[in-house]
Amino acid sequence: MMESILVVHGGAPTAVINASLYGAVRQTRRRGFRGRIYGAIHGTGGVLEERFADLGSSSEEALRRLLDTPASAIGTSRTPLEAEDYGRMAEILKKHQIRAVLMTGGNGTMDACGRLKAVCADEGISVCGIPKTIDNDIGVIDHAPGYGSAARFVAQCVSEIALDVRALPIHVCIVEVMGRNAGWLAAASALARREEGGAPDLIYVPEAAFDEEKFLSDVSALHAQKGDVVVVVSEGLKRPDGSTVAPPLFVSGRARYDGDVGNHLAKLVISRLGIKARSEKPGIWGRCCMAAQSPVDREEAVRMGALAADAALDGRSGVMAGLRRLSSDPYSCEEMLVPVEQVMLEERLLPPAFLSPAGNDVTEEFVAWCRPLAAYTPPDYASYF
Amino acid sequence: MMESILVVHGGAPTAVINASLYGAVRQTRRRGFRGRIYGAIHGTGGVLEERFADLGSSSEEALRRLLDTPASAIGTSRTPLEAEDYGRMAEILKKHQIRAVLMTGGNGTMDACGRLKAVCADEGISVCGIPKTIDNDIGVIDHAPGYGSAARFVAQCVSEIALDVRALPIHVCIVEVMGRNAGWLAAASALARREEGGAPDLIYVPEAAFDEEKFLSDVSALHAQKGDVVVVVSEGLKRPDGSTVAPPLFVSGRARYDGDVGNHLAKLVISRLGIKARSEKPGIWGRCCMAAQSPVDREEAVRMGALAADAALDGRSGVMAGLRRLSSDPYSCEEMLVPVEQVMLEERLLPPAFLSPAGNDVTEEFVAWCRPLAAYTPPDYASYF
Repeated sequence: MMESILVVHGGAPTAVINASLYGAVRQTRRRGFRGRIYGAIHGTGGVLEERFADLGSSSEEALRRLLDTPASAIGTSRTPLEAEDYGRMAEILKKHQIRAVLMTGGNGTMDACGRLKAVCADEGISVCGIPKTIDNDIGVIDHAPGYGSAARFVAQCVSEIALDVRALPIHVCIVEVMGRNAGWLAAASALARREEGGAPDLIYVPEAAFDEEKFLSDVSALHAQKGDVVVVVSEGLKRPDGSTVAPPLFVSGRARYDGDVGNHLAKLVISRLGIKARSEKPGIWGRCCMAAQSPVDREEAVRMGALAADAALDGRSGVMAGLRRLSSDPYSCEEMLVPVEQVMLEERLLPPAFLSPAGNDVTEEFVAWCRPLAAYTPPDYASYF
Repeated sequence: MMESILVVHGGAPTAVINASLYGAVRQTRRRGFRGRIYGAIHGTGGVLEERFADLGSSSEEALRRLLDTPASAIGTSRTPLEAEDYGRMAEILKKHQIRAVLMTGGNGTMDACGRLKAVCADEGISVCGIPKTIDNDIGVIDHAPGYGSAARFVAQCVSEIALDVRALPIHVCIVEVMGRNAGWLAAASALARREEGGAPDLIYVPEAAFDEEKFLSDVSALHAQKGDVVVVVSEGLKRPDGSTVAPPLFVSGRARYDGDVGNHLAKLVISRLGIKARSEKPGIWGRCCMAAQSPVDREEAVRMGALAADAALDGRSGVMAGLRRLSSDPYSCEEMLVPVEQVMLEERLLPPAFLSPAGNDVTEEFVAWCRPLAAYTPPDYASYF
């Protein structure tokens, strides 16, 4: 009986989710696996609809294009699963003679991975996880593939915007970056700093309760001192009472649409301080911009795909591939396998050691930890002023 | 008597304004010019304050870094000039023995160029213009340096976001791009299209009055047909009565802060159609992102700097360097000199031939015109669904 392996993508794409897919397929082939290699079209929803793409029959050259392809080349899914869906999936996997399932995603996907593993245990089907998130909020591991490229995107963006702001000058520029609960991405903007006291001048993350009055006094003081001020904020900033900083623009039943926090804060600077301000929101481009793909991130994504494939083909189930940091300088990580129960729906936030006591910046310790992942140092630009 | 040449930047930076600076300095040297080569620090304001950077003493290697440097390496200025400032500038130029001034900028800067030329005529000082704008709204010439790179940025961004939106899917994604009165940049998003009917699905520019009800019916129809919809809007969209689409968030005396049109329209889609929507606003990064620098734009920026330097050193005054299109396929332009009076404060909008009759797209004619400037065609990505 010919048995197959199936890769399933969950949650939002990253710049390297397809690199993990490549790593999984390549490693499966390298091991001389004789069965089919499938990708579920649009994640777990695709499994339930029995929509599978045949990846194994692609040429090595065609597969290598995955490394440079943004978004997810097999689609992904955000549809929440019901309890009964897991049993149905197990039946479908059996029917298609699938021996191993690799689920690529973040906390939510690892939760699904653990649940599917439980129902598949008696069927002899292995279910393993490949970590993936731009938010870097998966527990236990040092970092997740996808974060390094998104961090590089933020650093590149803020570095170049800061030069623009200084050249023009614009006064106050607020850059809003993704991150609802965890500030890892906003924190990465610190990599853009050329020197102490350089831009970005202020970094606000959801881990520190946001105080509007303190923000205004921070901006006002820096504007008086430097002229132009670059502020980076996580989209998910919260007030001390836990409410969102930007008031909701629309609420109706369960539907709710919050305003953009960057836009809200720019308005605040203008109306309260009388200083010219504007906001930028590069948004979801931060997770699919191939020009910002970190080479380190890409290589690690390939390795995590291969590691999970190895584990599954060796008959392991309920483990997620991961990386443990050995050293930041020189940068080195070792591979590890994490029991998926340890990361299911667990949300890892920035630790206190990475946050400045004033709550408006990150520490040098964070920068030293982050820089090798993004593989980003601001270039040595020409300047005559 | 040692005479000097001075380069002055005006208005917002582009990804290639420093390439024009490089072209002007290199050409001036190539001609064996023996005097000093200055850059005014922070534009005309820097001239009035007599703040000059010595560019001529830089090594060729150091100068070449200008080609890869975002923003303006000598700063730029947006300070409006008073009538008496021109006479003062002429005095300062005489005092510093400046024989030729090159002013790099858009319509506003060309206006200043024409006025300065008038007061400098009797002093034997040449004043010439180098075109520069991401908005592409300078008259007479085929296009201005800066536009091609900003167009490439928009095309790259929308191409990658469209893949993300399709992979997830997100439903309705609205990308707001720069452009207050002219829609050249929003129009460039059409370069991201892979096939007829591909994303972006709708493009709205300020040249066509924006009708919210028509917009909602366009989005609703496409959502029903395709599932996910990518919309590109110029920040300066206007209603039929000329008012802004996004209501002002703050008005006090002369200060006014409009909301983001993308954010406003996403809210409208959610509240009126009940469809999930979000908005992105890459904003000013679009004019300083070096990863999106168009090689064609960069080379033309160098040429325009050199052409203006040649004209000024030959004793011409009151002319702006420019390009006239000879052919789009293969792409070819010839250099031209335009009397600056023809472009002073003139604002060139998208012509009717580039706009679809329905007012929600651009024509193939526009795409054929624009593609060689951005030097962008969507890559052949891997896709298994």
